[in-house]
Amino acid sequence: MPFSDDPSATPFEQVPKAVIGRLSLYLRELQYMLKRGEKTTSSTHLGRLLGFSDTQVRKDLAYFGQFGYPGIGYRCEELMNAIKTIFGTHQRWPVALVGIGNLGRALLRYKGFSQQGFEIVSAFDIREELAGTTINEISIYHVDFLQKIISKQQIKLGIIAVPSNAAQFAADQLVEAGVLGVLNFAPVTVALPPHIHTVGVDLAIELEQLAFSVQHLQTPEAETGG
Amino acid sequence: MPFSDDPSATPFEQVPKAVIGRLSLYLRELQYMLKRGEKTTSSTHLGRLLGFSDTQVRKDLAYFGQFGYPGIGYRCEELMNAIKTIFGTHQRWPVALVGIGNLGRALLRYKGFSQQGFEIVSAFDIREELAGTTINEISIYHVDFLQKIISKQQIKLGIIAVPSNAAQFAADQLVEAGVLGVLNFAPVTVALPPHIHTVGVDLAIELEQLAFSVQHLQTPEAETGG
Repeated sequence: MPFSDDPSATPFEQVPKAVIGRLSLYLRELQYMLKRGEKTTSSTHLGRLLGFSDTQVRKDLAYFGQFGYPGIGYRCEELMNAIKTIFGTHQRWPVALVGIGNLGRALLRYKGFSQQGFEIVSAFDIREELAGTTINEISIYHVDFLQKIISKQQIKLGIIAVPSNAAQFAADQLVEAGVLGVLNFAPVTVALPPHIHTVGVDLAIELEQLAFSVQHLQTPEAETGG
Repeated sequence: MPFSDDPSATPFEQVPKAVIGRLSLYLRELQYMLKRGEKTTSSTHLGRLLGFSDTQVRKDLAYFGQFGYPGIGYRCEELMNAIKTIFGTHQRWPVALVGIGNLGRALLRYKGFSQQGFEIVSAFDIREELAGTTINEISIYHVDFLQKIISKQQIKLGIIAVPSNAAQFAADQLVEAGVLGVLNFAPVTVALPPHIHTVGVDLAIELEQLAFSVQHLQTPEAETGG
């Protein structure tokens, strides 16, 4: 476990969920900084980019240990790698995709996943005619083979991109295959066993946040994704 | 402005961004409750569904006024309508979409938008052969007509679903047309004038959050989307 040797680190299960959410935003900004050739940063700078206070940034990072250097601040690459280790994305995560409609096809070509250490390694659909084809070099199989292939590939994360009425079936199949985390794009909630983690992607939430800002905020804060 | 008559309400521009984010989650849960026929709820119940404390829920809602009733709690429909009024989604928002690739097609069919009061009313692509066609009854125009049509339809929200190398061009066109909020699905940051609000959708963030939970959390909290 990362930083378990750091006495100032908090056990992961005690870190508030909101902090883990902001950790993703810090990671993105650090990656942008490194692209721009910036070697170091500060809680103030990082906070300003995201519309958080420097105190917030320092408090969030302190859950995981000591990262700042007196007179230097944070070393971007070191902090980026530390956060990746917390997420486990310093190693590549294989992911399975169920549903090869328009959204599924878009996800198979989505560069944002591989940039962050996730790789869709197998995709599944119920339509016979898609079985045996590939998109973006990813093999598509009939859903009948889902359990066998996913268990064999030891995939722990699955993405559901099927129509609402097929979402529960897809979720059940993934869980049977040994998946522990399910990202659900279908606009319905799926019932899953208690040990399975699931996140429902609700694209309207981003529009709601925008609608609020457009109506009520004069000067945008640094707004960011996710 | 909603609740401006409520002396206990905070001016919108002074409400922390994180509170507005959680407001979307409260809205979803209230909508699920109403679907299930639940008429009233409590900060404890709402909080438990989302993994927040009841104090957090009460504190968040208090920014906007007094919603609870002694001995009753919150009336689901009333609170839902109040939150919709805050987002402005008690009225229908017309939205423009740029980019009719796989993602764009998926978004044109995405039911989650209309469920929350957003309606894609016009879509644009650079490919001549798509102009004049419709998807899900939404007209697709050549991008040359973007400015004229969006200004005429007085659309204030735009969605970018074009390849990365076309994202800045699409953003500039939307801004020229009078759009004030831009939802960007292209995995690049676009430069926009200071008065424009923008949110970048980073689908990998959800996977990061899942990866963290799968590795470090034994019993999932109520996890949720967005």
